[in-house]
Amino acid sequence: MEDFMPIPQAEIADRHERLRQQMDQHSLDAVLVGERYNYWFLTGHRTREIEKVMRPMLFVLPRQGDPVAIVYRQQGAKVKANIPTVRVYGYEDLPFDTELLVEAVKEAGLSTARIGFELGPNQRLGIAYEHLSALRSALPDLVMADAGPAIETVRLHKSPYEIEMLREAAAMSARAWERVIAEFSVGQSEREFATAVGVELLREGSEFDVAGHVTTATSRAAYDEPLQAGDTIWCDFGATLEGYQADIGRRAVMGQPSSDQLDVHRLVTSLFDRTLEAVRPGARASDVAKACSEAMKQAGLPELTERKRIGHGLGLNAGEGPSLGLQDHTVLEPGMVLCVEPRFFLPSKEKIHIEDVVVVTSDGYEPISTGAGELAVVAV
Amino acid sequence: MEDFMPIPQAEIADRHERLRQQMDQHSLDAVLVGERYNYWFLTGHRTREIEKVMRPMLFVLPRQGDPVAIVYRQQGAKVKANIPTVRVYGYEDLPFDTELLVEAVKEAGLSTARIGFELGPNQRLGIAYEHLSALRSALPDLVMADAGPAIETVRLHKSPYEIEMLREAAAMSARAWERVIAEFSVGQSEREFATAVGVELLREGSEFDVAGHVTTATSRAAYDEPLQAGDTIWCDFGATLEGYQADIGRRAVMGQPSSDQLDVHRLVTSLFDRTLEAVRPGARASDVAKACSEAMKQAGLPELTERKRIGHGLGLNAGEGPSLGLQDHTVLEPGMVLCVEPRFFLPSKEKIHIEDVVVVTSDGYEPISTGAGELAVVAV
Repeated sequence: MEDFMPIPQAEIADRHERLRQQMDQHSLDAVLVGERYNYWFLTGHRTREIEKVMRPMLFVLPRQGDPVAIVYRQQGAKVKANIPTVRVYGYEDLPFDTELLVEAVKEAGLSTARIGFELGPNQRLGIAYEHLSALRSALPDLVMADAGPAIETVRLHKSPYEIEMLREAAAMSARAWERVIAEFSVGQSEREFATAVGVELLREGSEFDVAGHVTTATSRAAYDEPLQAGDTIWCDFGATLEGYQADIGRRAVMGQPSSDQLDVHRLVTSLFDRTLEAVRPGARASDVAKACSEAMKQAGLPELTERKRIGHGLGLNAGEGPSLGLQDHTVLEPGMVLCVEPRFFLPSKEKIHIEDVVVVTSDGYEPISTGAGELAVVAV
Repeated sequence: MEDFMPIPQAEIADRHERLRQQMDQHSLDAVLVGERYNYWFLTGHRTREIEKVMRPMLFVLPRQGDPVAIVYRQQGAKVKANIPTVRVYGYEDLPFDTELLVEAVKEAGLSTARIGFELGPNQRLGIAYEHLSALRSALPDLVMADAGPAIETVRLHKSPYEIEMLREAAAMSARAWERVIAEFSVGQSEREFATAVGVELLREGSEFDVAGHVTTATSRAAYDEPLQAGDTIWCDFGATLEGYQADIGRRAVMGQPSSDQLDVHRLVTSLFDRTLEAVRPGARASDVAKACSEAMKQAGLPELTERKRIGHGLGLNAGEGPSLGLQDHTVLEPGMVLCVEPRFFLPSKEKIHIEDVVVVTSDGYEPISTGAGELAVVAV
């Protein structure tokens, strides 16, 4: 058994309360979710079962009245542990019977309700299309609406609990990185580096079943070739804690960096700092992208193109909204968590990229992770 | 950069050919997928980008003509590396523009085609519902059908390449298990055991970004309490190789097993063997479940209930069809890969479960993994 820390019940209640406020604004009587991250967010119940497409795990939050879960039976108790008031409809293996879903919606008094489903452009339907159709056929007076705007607004604003999880996941990742740097030897390969990062993330308590990520690249092309003095390695990685992701980007050089390497790192660090300066409540995501683009231009680098982004939100998914790009005009507000990651390519095609995480505060931002500016040195 | 082994182009071509045969049978002019596993299967292109809901990765296989990919631009080259004939439509960050999708479908000559989408009960729509709606509005003569039966049939029959990947993932998992058993010490906790399994899976080359799984339980309740002589631990786990999952279940006892423990293990092993005996081409999934149920009854255990399963298919997803349950009458055919996992509970609530993987052959089955019958012993 995995030892899931119980999600504080007040945390779940707060999420539900905030979603209900959004339902008021969007004229929804209920929201029905099944997509992995939305389900996790609203139930606190992370489970691999949701990966098995024949086992939908559905959660209904009505604007009024008790929540409802339609889940694989043996998972019911776990949902209830987080949400004592939930009404659980359990099914056993197969096949999933839509009548159970219809019954659950009926008994919740939602037969003629306006229900928000996961329909919007940044959503994926967490229920089979045919199951959704069956529900609508059985309850022809049910009104189908998009739950996207309501859910996305709530998930955009991180609670202190979520920020705490994100902070700890980042700290776990930073500790893992430090150990890898201290123990890695020139002559080992990129593959060995990537494995070492993964191993240290697991040792820090990162979850194996809910993957974090480790992506690497080096100034050398071959994954299995020994790294040599003077080579650089880049790593974008993150532990997962209670489903919350870290997402940080670090660079290391084998042996003492050359002056060129130091110059390049100074440049990306200055882009990073200039981008961060634009992060404050009231600024738009696009303003942050613009600040980065200006700094790139001044440094003689190509400006940001219309559709590129230099950062993004972070939470249960490693790539949430908003997008720090010129087309995303989301107004930043306290509690939004952002990954800031300016990047450019050297003429050699080497990718230069560092990344740290911040949370928007009432007067600027606070770091969730720090250290992007440090160029790590692997002893030769 | 992860070092993805290139998928043999002949393998992808064979999958496409088999899907096209299914399209003939199901009167489809094309299939459009975006769900993670379907996309991986048809493109050979595993990517974390697909997790980012604002970045749909879509693949269209027409019954005639070249395949089409509508993907995040920087991923286009990877799709093309596996499928040289693919026509790639790339988009940059945001927002995803459905006009690109409409254009791609038009240019493929599919404006009035009967296209199979991921609609069925064992599917998830890999494109946002609103994007699908936009496509249908723009091309009102397009006919929407369910791609489920066609795709599921192709994925049900594993190719020699897929079987090889599954076999190697299982071998990696078995080696990891052996090292954990050899190195684990009584006095360490369940958490340490689970971490050790994860670490050894990574060392074997299991992918960090595409999670395998490690689930444990012990005869002791607390995750962080030291295990003691006489305790048992159960572990359901698997490495991931090129996206292919292992899924095996093993049990270990701390120190020499008692005669009761040996009896219990003998019982689950005999259930396992009895279940396996029913695996042969022409038998139905339900026949295998029935054999297990009979054996359970004879052993004085509760029979299988109507909706429980004692095994399932395996491939890119750890819980694919068919379901070895009394309600699934899929006829077994050579190339189907099955996880066989009878289980029962002791009066103490301890879960007794072992699991191995087999592939159906022309006259029975061949093991993909072996060892479920061995009760491992951790030295005291």
